[in-house]
Amino acid sequence: MSTIDEMLESNKAYAKAFDKGSLPLPPARKVAIVTCMDARIDPARALGLVEGDAHVIRNAGGRVSEALRSLVISQTLLGTQEVAIIHHTDCGMLTFTDAELRTRLRGERGVDADHVAFLPFGDLDQSVRDDLAVYGNSGLVRQDVPVRGFVYDVKTGRLREVS
Amino acid sequence: MSTIDEMLESNKAYAKAFDKGSLPLPPARKVAIVTCMDARIDPARALGLVEGDAHVIRNAGGRVSEALRSLVISQTLLGTQEVAIIHHTDCGMLTFTDAELRTRLRGERGVDADHVAFLPFGDLDQSVRDDLAVYGNSGLVRQDVPVRGFVYDVKTGRLREVS
Repeated sequence: MSTIDEMLESNKAYAKAFDKGSLPLPPARKVAIVTCMDARIDPARALGLVEGDAHVIRNAGGRVSEALRSLVISQTLLGTQEVAIIHHTDCGMLTFTDAELRTRLRGERGVDADHVAFLPFGDLDQSVRDDLAVYGNSGLVRQDVPVRGFVYDVKTGRLREVS
Repeated sequence: MSTIDEMLESNKAYAKAFDKGSLPLPPARKVAIVTCMDARIDPARALGLVEGDAHVIRNAGGRVSEALRSLVISQTLLGTQEVAIIHHTDCGMLTFTDAELRTRLRGERGVDADHVAFLPFGDLDQSVRDDLAVYGNSGLVRQDVPVRGFVYDVKTGRLREVS
């Protein structure tokens, strides 16, 4: 059985016990979280969130540049008033460069990815500071709300704030 | 107390009970999920996932065009071999047009967003088919793996496949 088919089986049990059918669209706790797609991060469990609480934006690295569109929608149409940017230890984005990934794509699959910025980084804390700066320098998102940056430790489950 | 401070308090309890400190970076169940940032969706609970299982990519609408960078990294560097694209009922992306949001940003905050495509949609099932097509037409991502599209019903917690 494929993983997707297994997920569909799990979803049947989830739907059977589902009791959150009348939640409103805007997040109850008015926060937007930007974090990595990493499989080891479960934002809901790690941050004490339940269905309806928070917008969760996730991409490779938890990069803010790619989250700006979503953050504008979150803030302007759905009323979120805080932003948490969460990168994490042992991130895949620390393991490659654009040049290396482009070479690998060309070699393995004949794919030309020279036009794609994959947004890797070499220093974890600096990547959080960089993304706080991307946020701070964007005219699209609200600058009058708290925006805080963190590193999540995949070995301990603990968040550490980056200042 | 701010929501972020509340999340940090919740995280202390999560970290105290944490027993997933030795999970590998590549997702155990070799699947990447693309879905919306919507607060009512908890992909882990709804799909039966635990820490370490799956890449979860989330943005406003669960749009694939903005997920391609992450999917390349997921597949090429971290070995995922299935893709699930999950949009959902009552999505905020059904409630506005680019022109309307640009007008609102200009009116409320003096922001020029004329250069930003916010990727709203008018038909839910069609948005899933469109994103399956975006995937299928991309030379960057693997075309030799299962890619399936779904609509998640926020009133029932149930997934429905879109073909």
